[in-house]
Amino acid sequence: MSDASGGITREELQLAARNHGMPLEALRLTVTPPGLHYVLTHYDIPVVDPTTWRLSIGGHVRRPLQLSLEELRALPRITVTVTLECAGNGRALLSPRPVSQPWLLEAVGTAEWTGVPLASILDRASPGVGAVDVSFRGMDRGVEDGRTQNFERGLSLAEASAPGVVVADEMNGRPLPAQHGFPLRLVVPGTYGMASVKWLDLITVHDRSFEGYQNATAYRLRASEDDPGEPLSRMSPRALVIPPGVPEFPSRVRHVRPGRVTLRGRAWSGWGRVIRVDVSDDGGRSWAKAAVGEPPGPYAWAPWAFEWDVGEGEHELCCRATDETGRTQPLEPSWNAGGYANNEVQRIRVVAQADRD
Amino acid sequence: MSDASGGITREELQLAARNHGMPLEALRLTVTPPGLHYVLTHYDIPVVDPTTWRLSIGGHVRRPLQLSLEELRALPRITVTVTLECAGNGRALLSPRPVSQPWLLEAVGTAEWTGVPLASILDRASPGVGAVDVSFRGMDRGVEDGRTQNFERGLSLAEASAPGVVVADEMNGRPLPAQHGFPLRLVVPGTYGMASVKWLDLITVHDRSFEGYQNATAYRLRASEDDPGEPLSRMSPRALVIPPGVPEFPSRVRHVRPGRVTLRGRAWSGWGRVIRVDVSDDGGRSWAKAAVGEPPGPYAWAPWAFEWDVGEGEHELCCRATDETGRTQPLEPSWNAGGYANNEVQRIRVVAQADRD
Repeated sequence: MSDASGGITREELQLAARNHGMPLEALRLTVTPPGLHYVLTHYDIPVVDPTTWRLSIGGHVRRPLQLSLEELRALPRITVTVTLECAGNGRALLSPRPVSQPWLLEAVGTAEWTGVPLASILDRASPGVGAVDVSFRGMDRGVEDGRTQNFERGLSLAEASAPGVVVADEMNGRPLPAQHGFPLRLVVPGTYGMASVKWLDLITVHDRSFEGYQNATAYRLRASEDDPGEPLSRMSPRALVIPPGVPEFPSRVRHVRPGRVTLRGRAWSGWGRVIRVDVSDDGGRSWAKAAVGEPPGPYAWAPWAFEWDVGEGEHELCCRATDETGRTQPLEPSWNAGGYANNEVQRIRVVAQADRD
Repeated sequence: MSDASGGITREELQLAARNHGMPLEALRLTVTPPGLHYVLTHYDIPVVDPTTWRLSIGGHVRRPLQLSLEELRALPRITVTVTLECAGNGRALLSPRPVSQPWLLEAVGTAEWTGVPLASILDRASPGVGAVDVSFRGMDRGVEDGRTQNFERGLSLAEASAPGVVVADEMNGRPLPAQHGFPLRLVVPGTYGMASVKWLDLITVHDRSFEGYQNATAYRLRASEDDPGEPLSRMSPRALVIPPGVPEFPSRVRHVRPGRVTLRGRAWSGWGRVIRVDVSDDGGRSWAKAAVGEPPGPYAWAPWAFEWDVGEGEHELCCRATDETGRTQPLEPSWNAGGYANNEVQRIRVVAQADRD
């Protein structure tokens, strides 16, 4: 289902009013606080009583488990700094526009997630011989394709066992906020956000491919509605810049004074380290290399900076990340039916005027 | 400027992706946490160093003041529980739609704001004879009508001196989050959110009417672009219900089982106590009275509940608040050029089906 007219529909607006991106000026911060970190909730945010809540691990395992929040918190813990991005980031830039949450480019954030490594929980439950997939069920319920269901998404056992994958009860050193999955969520570094199931209460090990709605139907790169497509996994590279100067209300065109402007931003990729960021001020016709700094960890965005000599007039500012695998960002989007993984370069209109305050 | 086509424009979407409403299931909570409380930022969220930041009070006063955060925090403090609503709440329901932040009905939240009563600060500065208005400048800067300016809005001296008006450095018992005005904001109970200036650093007392952009041009009820209009002030009454059952993705139509469903919600008015909430399940043709509970304070929303006997089929659920002054909510909006103060009743499509899970 897509909308060719260009105008965002009431249905999409309902989602845009509930969910929110990270205002891009928050790229100044290495770690994004809740309230600025992007939030995408498919259904309603569930109200969970942490005293009766339990995490169950079952299915194709030798030792099914049930853990209270207290029991979970007593296990050895890790903290990972992870950049999460919604798979639909960039969707509203596509034409025709697939109808879902109409993200522009703000569906991202980086947080410090603390909890128990998923591998150690799986290890305790001991997956049976022939285990292939692991699914994660959230407590959030809704109707998709005519069926009432919980949000549930699967990973391969190999993906689930990777270091860095954590069942987290803390975000930035405090209990998870309701909208980020209280009391417990999965965090899967490097992978689009749909894998990081919130309000987690059930982990199921499968001896065959998990074919739940969010794996088999949603979150696939499909050329058309009929194409079965390929599953989405790792985040494509993306660089974003803090919009320079001041915004015009309501257009958000940027106004700067001509002269030297230090541009700063962040860049990430789920496929490997970002090794290069390029900047253009003519809409992508010419590029210059930015200085890329150290990320705060292997799963988080890297800072970058660029000294921009701004001439009087209008400019179309762009930035582009390239990772160590050679993956980079296109100047034009590649369309798909679900509107996923559009990592076309960011474009910002900047007006430089000397007499500006 | 308005858009008759119905489709939300790219410009409006840029605002909707940054700002966010309160997901209506958060009406369960008396006090709204940051991240769920609505946020509307006109320009960029400024980055403020609290060690060098000062609050200045000047203009038509006998004793101009400068206060550090530490000095402010040493003054006698109060905590007020305040429901804040954006003046543009309901804007996107209007037709033609005035182009600005396209709110549906979620631009609301209730928080506990702690800080110094504004009256006591004004008292220290001692307004001169003939003082009439007080303006509040935020540190957020942007371009409106071609002029670069800080957000600044004024109140009459009487409004500014009212009990409950506070310059707050804490929200819900913690330092203000960046997006709610760190390190200091004004909170004006009963008045639409534009009065509660964030990132406050300058208070100016005036011996004539304050004619800044946000008072003289924006935030006025105008019949047309040419009409000078009337200033906006207190919040019109509104009741909202927690959407029952589970949502369909992406339409957010609600699905419930037929039978008894307890509806709960909150209602508020800036003009006086809410004394009545009515509920309709036929789009406003017939109404029944809900039970209204005690608000957590004189400036905050009141809880309400209604036992709904849901028949199989489709229903249009509505609710309507009436306050002690007799003000209530219309079934149809009254249009104005800025799209402000549209308190038409909430309408939710609910499908009741016995075989639903």
